Amino acid sequence: MRKFAAGRLKNALTRYLNNHTNLSSSQSRFLSSKTVLDSATSMADPSSSPVTLQTINPKVLKCEYAVRGEIVNIAQRLQQELLDKPGTLPFDEILYCNIGNPQSLGQHPITFFREVLALCDYPSILDKSETQGLFSADSIERAWKILDQIPGRATGAYSHSQGIKGLRDAIAAGIEARDGCPADPNDIFLTDGASPAVHMMMQLLISSEKDGILCPIPQYPLYSASIALHGGTLVPYYLDEASGWGLETSELKKQLEDAKSKGISVRALVVINPGNPTGQVLAEGNQRDIVEFCKKEGLVLLADEVYQENVYVPDKKFHSFKKVSRSMGYGEADISLVSFQSVSKGYYGECGKRGGYMEVTGFSADIREQIYKMASVNLCSNISGQILASLVMSPPKVGDESYDSYRGERDGILSSLARRAKTLEDALNSLEGITCNKAEGAMYLFPQINLPQKAIEAAKAAKTVPDTFYCRQLLNATGIVVVPGSGFGQVPGTWHFRCTILPQEDKIPAIVTRLTDFHKKFMDEYRD
Amino acid sequence: MRKFAAGRLKNALTRYLNNHTNLSSSQSRFLSSKTVLDSATSMADPSSSPVTLQTINPKVLKCEYAVRGEIVNIAQRLQQELLDKPGTLPFDEILYCNIGNPQSLGQHPITFFREVLALCDYPSILDKSETQGLFSADSIERAWKILDQIPGRATGAYSHSQGIKGLRDAIAAGIEARDGCPADPNDIFLTDGASPAVHMMMQLLISSEKDGILCPIPQYPLYSASIALHGGTLVPYYLDEASGWGLETSELKKQLEDAKSKGISVRALVVINPGNPTGQVLAEGNQRDIVEFCKKEGLVLLADEVYQENVYVPDKKFHSFKKVSRSMGYGEADISLVSFQSVSKGYYGECGKRGGYMEVTGFSADIREQIYKMASVNLCSNISGQILASLVMSPPKVGDESYDSYRGERDGILSSLARRAKTLEDALNSLEGITCNKAEGAMYLFPQINLPQKAIEAAKAAKTVPDTFYCRQLLNATGIVVVPGSGFGQVPGTWHFRCTILPQEDKIPAIVTRLTDFHKKFMDEYRD
Repeated sequence: MRKFAAGRLKNALTRYLNNHTNLSSSQSRFLSSKTVLDSATSMADPSSSPVTLQTINPKVLKCEYAVRGEIVNIAQRLQQELLDKPGTLPFDEILYCNIGNPQSLGQHPITFFREVLALCDYPSILDKSETQGLFSADSIERAWKILDQIPGRATGAYSHSQGIKGLRDAIAAGIEARDGCPADPNDIFLTDGASPAVHMMMQLLISSEKDGILCPIPQYPLYSASIALHGGTLVPYYLDEASGWGLETSELKKQLEDAKSKGISVRALVVINPGNPTGQVLAEGNQRDIVEFCKKEGLVLLADEVYQENVYVPDKKFHSFKKVSRSMGYGEADISLVSFQSVSKGYYGECGKRGGYMEVTGFSADIREQIYKMASVNLCSNISGQILASLVMSPPKVGDESYDSYRGERDGILSSLARRAKTLEDALNSLEGITCNKAEGAMYLFPQINLPQKAIEAAKAAKTVPDTFYCRQLLNATGIVVVPGSGFGQVPGTWHFRCTILPQEDKIPAIVTRLTDFHKKFMDEYRD
Repeated sequence: MRKFAAGRLKNALTRYLNNHTNLSSSQSRFLSSKTVLDSATSMADPSSSPVTLQTINPKVLKCEYAVRGEIVNIAQRLQQELLDKPGTLPFDEILYCNIGNPQSLGQHPITFFREVLALCDYPSILDKSETQGLFSADSIERAWKILDQIPGRATGAYSHSQGIKGLRDAIAAGIEARDGCPADPNDIFLTDGASPAVHMMMQLLISSEKDGILCPIPQYPLYSASIALHGGTLVPYYLDEASGWGLETSELKKQLEDAKSKGISVRALVVINPGNPTGQVLAEGNQRDIVEFCKKEGLVLLADEVYQENVYVPDKKFHSFKKVSRSMGYGEADISLVSFQSVSKGYYGECGKRGGYMEVTGFSADIREQIYKMASVNLCSNISGQILASLVMSPPKVGDESYDSYRGERDGILSSLARRAKTLEDALNSLEGITCNKAEGAMYLFPQINLPQKAIEAAKAAKTVPDTFYCRQLLNATGIVVVPGSGFGQVPGTWHFRCTILPQEDKIPAIVTRLTDFHKKFMDEYRD
């Protein structure tokens, strides 16, 4: 046993060091300013420290998270340079297209949601006359309703471990309205965004590296990071780029059998719909195949549905996996299904509020008890996030004072996102060697770059992978931050990057111009 | 390896099932209402489910968290009974003394903090005239200042993985003012309460059951739960009840050697000061001994300092471990120290906001990089919690419009807590067979009950441990919810319970009366 553990440690450490051959770049991943560099290196002899790369948990070493990785650290350094030495770089701002973070790029919050949150934070003003002049009547009414659902109206108290019951009632009602089939508030676990919910399920399902989780490739790196942190095995299934990132059950079957032959018990299947980083919206028939596959193979279906509000094409609709499985006649007894939702995405994009929930169905009482216990250890998720999660699932209705402004804000954001997606997609597809599937939903484009051999050699010489090489050059030339495809996984030998569609519309023409100019120059330099 | 893992699984499962012999009580731990019982058991044949107690992560099974355990589930059921069948129980309300959750028991939030939070949630009202009538001038000013520290004033955006830089600056300045020695904003990691920070450090330090963490006994069960979830070994050191829960380095040394002799590498030492559940405030000399011990033995010092504002006795003061270690001449190069702070405790008690931070000092750059990566996987903590964490470390100052009301609220809460602690302590000490150390700080009393043999036999017959038996009887007779000492750990053969000092002052006399009456009857029934 000790020999095994030591071997695993050595492997993880070797992998880690191989990935971080360039020491200064490795350091820059963490160090966001000079100050921290000074203080961090002030430990005279790090080898005498009780904590070293050799003694920490090798699962932590193994974990990678590209969305905030090397490229973003370079961007933060360049941003500091823009402040310290204006005019010395070939651009005057950094355009963060690396992360689905709409409000960081100027998107405004939905007014009604923020009115209610402010009133719940400071309920003393609810019955003052000035408040009428500052807040809409229905936000005041909604705040009262929410406060009445909180025991003692105490928004500063820990709640039930699953979240405030009245808010879970509102969420369940919202799910019922969406799906047209029953939802139980006791199946809802409110969480600080979707990430902790995903970690919780991985922690439950993974005992060792013999437990596998089927994940799409490309995938959102939260999944690979969480599986690595919990010591499981990511069993990849490849989305088919040629058919618009389609998902074939034959591929699922093949990868499952392959994993089994290696002694891996596959516990669950992750599906991200709408797709991240790929932006596709699954067809209902495809979803049925997936449900059938999970049922037949005894897999938990982990459905990442955080982009359910983000669909941009008229011929596609979002269907929840719960709705699809219920429409097939499968109930609690037939399929174990967890649906993840977040307030960070949708048209609202309230990433900083860290609200979200998972709807947990089809587990036996004793397993549900274990999930409840895990939630209890962290006491509860933040109450503002809980309130917001209930609001996004029960927004203003026709006839409410806020309805028109709410609808205007929502539709304005969604239609603008659709236009931005189309403009960027067209621009990318017009470039030499780049092909880009449509962003049917979510917030991303994931173009393939057919890199010339000379660029691949140059990347090798620069001790990096070709897509990272491309993204670094793009950043240094234009200030545009995108994430290399290698951070998400891709068919070996293909190269991609993920670019969000989130910069405000007035910035899009400049992005297109900068990207086009850069790409032409890059190809001129490296064309074979 | 597989054999080893299977053996471990069997052990964990056996332990789990031994602890849950009473099925209905075990189910009630999770099931908060009839609805969920129906839906949870509607899975026709749970054994056909892909997820069973035999297949999930045995570390999850092993984890226990008594603060929200069996007693609280009974309390929730009784609360429902009070609603459904009023007048049928011997009390008319449940008094939750199980958890440090002040606002759930009627404590009001600090006005200034909530004003600022509301304004940051809905900045559109900042420059409207009505706002002047509703909010204090300095809360408006502070909200502007905070918004200016947030890139794009976007309170709805993910922040830097460690938290918003300007807020970390304010926190570092607050730490400097507290300790009189420098603090670096780049050492601060803002988190959703202290719990995720503790988990992050455990995840970093624990690779296997061969990694040990020295923890006080009694301890706050977050530590035992987190160590269990990450698969490490809790190495206990016993606090000395007879000397007011003192901490002897000879005991630390003995337990460390004992662990080493079993092949366990002890990685870190947890100290909770002021103590939870024990309420003591460590003397500075004692803290020096602990620092010296950690330095000498190469242990990370994990300092839980979330009760730093809660000190009730004039002869004791809170000193941070960072201040103490710096005063001994130990800097970054000498000791690895993590200090945990939370907005849930203190006089503010904003548990529902889930704000907190850890200050990470004395780690090498490559380890800090790993901690940063772990923080990045979850993107960031909630921004309202971040703002609040900065506010509690930089409250209004003399001369600010809010200062007088702020000071009045703060001092009112702290002096009332001191009175409540004293009244409850005196009441407990007046009871037959009960001895109770002073609550010098924190929010708890941890009395020892010298239970008669007959009560111990009765507990055995009821298939439970004696302190749980006592707490159940207390709850059923009085509606008072306390947590059995076995949930925190105690010297074998001794029995305790943890009782918060948080019920509002007008409730304290009734609690004293009910507790006294119950205890007399209990002793009359079971006295040998």
